[in-house]
Parts: sequence; structure tokens; C-alpha cells
Amino acid sequence: MEDITLEVANRAINAAIRKSQKMNVKQNIAIVDRGGNLKAFARMEGAWLGSIDIAIKKARTARLFDIETGDIGKMSKPNGPLYGIELTNGGLVSFSGGIPLTNGEDEIVGAIGVSGGTVKEDQAVAEDGAEAASDLLERRAA
Amino acid sequence: MEDITLEVANRAINAAIRKSQKMNVKQNIAIVDRGGNLKAFARMEGAWLGSIDIAIKKARTARLFDIETGDIGKMSKPNGPLYGIELTNGGLVSFSGGIPLTNGEDEIVGAIGVSGGTVKEDQAVAEDGAEAASDLLERRAA
Amino acid sequence: MEDITLEVANRAINAAIRKSQKMNVKQNIAIVDRGGNLKAFARMEGAWLGSIDIAIKKARTARLFDIETGDIGKMSKPNGPLYGIELTNGGLVSFSGGIPLTNGEDEIVGAIGVSGGTVKEDQAVAEDGAEAASDLLERRAA
Amino acid sequence: MEDITLEVANRAINAAIRKSQKMNVKQNIAIVDRGGNLKAFARMEGAWLGSIDIAIKKARTARLFDIETGDIGKMSKPNGPLYGIELTNGGLVSFSGGIPLTNGEDEIVGAIGVSGGTVKEDQAVAEDGAEAASDLLERRAA
Repeated sequence: MEDITLEVANRAINAAIRKSQKMNVKQNIAIVDRGGNLKAFARMEGAWLGSIDIAIKKARTARLFDIETGDIGKMSKPNGPLYGIELTNGGLVSFSGGIPLTNGEDEIVGAIGVSGGTVKEDQAVAEDGAEAASDLLERRAA
Repeated sequence: MEDITLEVANRAINAAIRKSQKMNVKQNIAIVDRGGNLKAFARMEGAWLGSIDIAIKKARTARLFDIETGDIGKMSKPNGPLYGIELTNGGLVSFSGGIPLTNGEDEIVGAIGVSGGTVKEDQAVAEDGAEAASDLLERRAA
Repeated sequence: MEDITLEVANRAINAAIRKSQKMNVKQNIAIVDRGGNLKAFARMEGAWLGSIDIAIKKARTARLFDIETGDIGKMSKPNGPLYGIELTNGGLVSFSGGIPLTNGEDEIVGAIGVSGGTVKEDQAVAEDGAEAASDLLERRAA
Repeated sequence: MEDITLEVANRAINAAIRKSQKMNVKQNIAIVDRGGNLKAFARMEGAWLGSIDIAIKKARTARLFDIETGDIGKMSKPNGPLYGIELTNGGLVSFSGGIPLTNGEDEIVGAIGVSGGTVKEDQAVAEDGAEAASDLLERRAA
């Protein structure tokens, strides 16, 4: 399996930025590779400084468990089975905005993390970024 | 946009101290600049040592997300959309007492964080500090 | 003074990547803004994972002291006046590859950090990135 | 023994700022109390962001060992008896610019740390700050 390329990462970031501009929200967007390591990052003008770390942690969280961050959040509440998981791995983020990136064969090659708006906005922007990455990878695989 | 000056920071701190004395509470007061970096700090005699870090983190939190810390707290409860956000950015504080500082054009130029009393007291003191800073900046802009 | 924009940051990264390709070296490239906060990042295919952190720290170091990282290194040797400075600020990097970014009026608006090759290669790539950013900012200012 | 008051801390900071202005250098100035905890802090306009942490660590170092930081530096070189001491206590700084503050009875009541210039400049500014604090404390004791 190929790891994510900078071309794919930038494709995802640019799609995320376009979506953010349409939604009129200022985002931080992070892409991690298959190993969970930072591959690419961009902060739009005026985006929250506190969202740099959150965007990177959302991407890492999504890849570390191959799951959307919002789905981890459902399990990490005080009464959930994963209560406190955010304290592991140097800090995880368990609210929406982090999504694994898949290639044309449903293999996970990395993840995207978005932070800067409401969690709904973050999730919508991350979805567009993830879709753009997958589209490109599928065309390559075809 | 100008960054916050030491004169403005000290104006905010002095107003916060006067308010604390009126309320008979001992406070730690921190001011951060536009980049979230510490600009000025003062601890009143007898103020809690544990509040040094909290005051600084409140100011940082308020600037990192351009919001009052108490408003983040409403969203970071176990059932809120930002549950666990306090674990990011090296530690945030999500109870009242941190307020962004704005200039005469409603631009955020830094933040104040206050800790040492009840959260209501901290908030009241931070409000006086923030107001003093804004007053001075508005007069400058006028 | 304007903070660095994503357009300028990407201009610097792209110039750095072109130089890296010419030199046949795989680099991590980080851009921080005026506050020392991450603005943009890119890792070329196959670049060292350990250089992600180094590239970011080089950029941060260059902005935190408004100096090229290699020049700090000259002062932080065991017999130098700043011995041990690398241990401050959550970790600094004091070998070449970090350069402040200036606008058309010689004001520092951020910094670039490059890691992935020899320090000579890192420095050469960072220089091309810094030059590209300054060229664009000077044209804007003109 | 009285702990350092905010009045004394501010006296030291203001003397340090006056000296810095005379020397045309932009400084970060930190004051810690008898317990080594931050009491007051000020950053002059344009002073290095990386010197916030260094100024605070210099003040802490000076009080933790009741010694000027430059004197620790003489012992912490690779061949010295305290090699590596900078790695303890969450990070110490062992170059000049940190000085204990004494009252009229030669008791140490806190420390000042200055960072933003050359180590010579930092030391000169710290000396003026320390002297101003001691002068005030001696008059009080008299």
C-alpha cells in the first residue's frame, strides 16, 4: 500500500479550504500519513490559534484508531466504555472534525483533522477534504 | 493592527487590582498579546500560588479561541460539543475569568486572565481589567 | 504590520520544495507566523519522520529570537554565552535551517524551518523559501 | 521574614525597564517570590518572544539555588561539577541575567530574571532591578 503523497494531502487541504470559504468559516486543516505523522497543514487567515493543536490532534486521533473522532466521542463520555481515552497518546480529541482517508481499495492511508468552526462545520469541511483525497486516490488506482 | 502595549497591559492589571481590593479578594492577573504570549503579570499579596498557572491559562484560552473562558466551559461539559478541549494546547481553562481584549475597532489584541477568587469574582475583576484596556485603546484610536 | 498569509506561506513552501528536488533531498518544511504559531507545513515523500518536529522547532526558534537558527548555535556551544538555551521554550533547535521571514519593510512576519538533509542542505532550501516569501511581500508592498 | 510584595516587584521591573531604555535594548523581566513562584512580569514592546520563558526560568533558577544564574553556568559546563543541572526542575537557565533579591538583612526574598539582549546586557539590567528592590526593602527595614 502506498502512503499518502503530498499531492493527495494538498488536494484534501484545498478542497477543505474551498468548502470553508463557501461556509464563511476560518479553519485549521491538518493531514497525517499512515503512521499518524504530520504530512501537511494549513491555517486560514484569522483562524483560531487554539485550533492548530486541535486540528492536528483530530487527524492523529482519527488515524490512531481508524475511526471518525466524533465516533470516539460517543464512547469517551463519563458513562462510556472509553472514558478518559483523550488522556492517552499525548492527548487525543474526541469531537467531530477528524476523518480517516481511504484509497480506492478501502485501505486507510492517513487522516484529515479540521478545527476552527463549530463541530458541525469542522465535520462538513473535513468530509469535503476526505472526499477529495479519496477521489484522487481512486482515480489513480483505476 | 497594533499588538497590545505594556502601557495597555498595565492599565488592565491596575484596574483589575483596584476592583479586587474593593471586593476584598486576592488575585493573579495575566495579560497575553495577540499571539497568545505572556505580556504582563501580577500576583497580589497572599493570592493562591495555584492560580498563577490558571490566570495565565485563562488569558491564553481566551485569546486562542477569541472567546470568554466561561463560554467555552458551557460547551466542554461531558454532554457538550467540545468535551475534553481542556486537554489540548498544553492545557486550557474553561471556567470564567478569561476575556479577550479589544481595541477601538473591535479587533482582538490580546486577553486577560484572572484567578484567585470564586469564578464570579474572577470574572468581575477580569471585566474591569478588560474595560480599562479597551477604554484606553478606544481613546487612542479616536 | 500584516501577519503572514497562507499565500505567502505556500509560496515559501513551494520554492523550498523546488530547491529540494533540484538538490535531490527530501525535506520537511514548516512556516510559523509572527506569533510563532504554525501557519503551514509540508513533508515531501520519504522525508525523515524525525524531522517533522525539527522543522517546526527551527521555524519557531528563528521567530522567537528573530535570528537564523545557525547563529544561535554559534552561541549555545558549551563555551558560548547561551549554553543550554535549547532546553527553554519547550525545546529549541540551534543548527542551521531556520530563517526569519521579512516583508518589504524589513519587518519580521514569521519564519521558515527546514529539516531532512544535511544542515547545509536544510539551510540552502530554507534560504530559497525565505527569498520567495520576501519577494512576494516586497512586490505587495511596492 | 516578609515575602516580596507587588510594590517591590514593580519597583524592580520599572528600574529594569528604565535601564533597558537607556541601553536601547528590549527586555522581558520576571520577578519570583521566596517560593520561586512568579510574582510579576513585563515584556517591553518588540522584545523577543523566546525570552519570556528564559526570563522566568532565570528568576526561578536564581531563587532555587540562591545564586546568580551566571555563577551556575560556570559549574554546569561539560567539565564542571553540575553538568546537566539545566535539565532539572522543569528546566533551568545557567547564563547571566538572573539575580536573587535581598532585603535589608541580607535575606533572600525572591529573584529577578531578565532576557532580551546579550547576556551582558541582561545582567546589567537585572542588576539595576535587583538594586532598586533592595534599596526599597532596606529603607523599609530601617
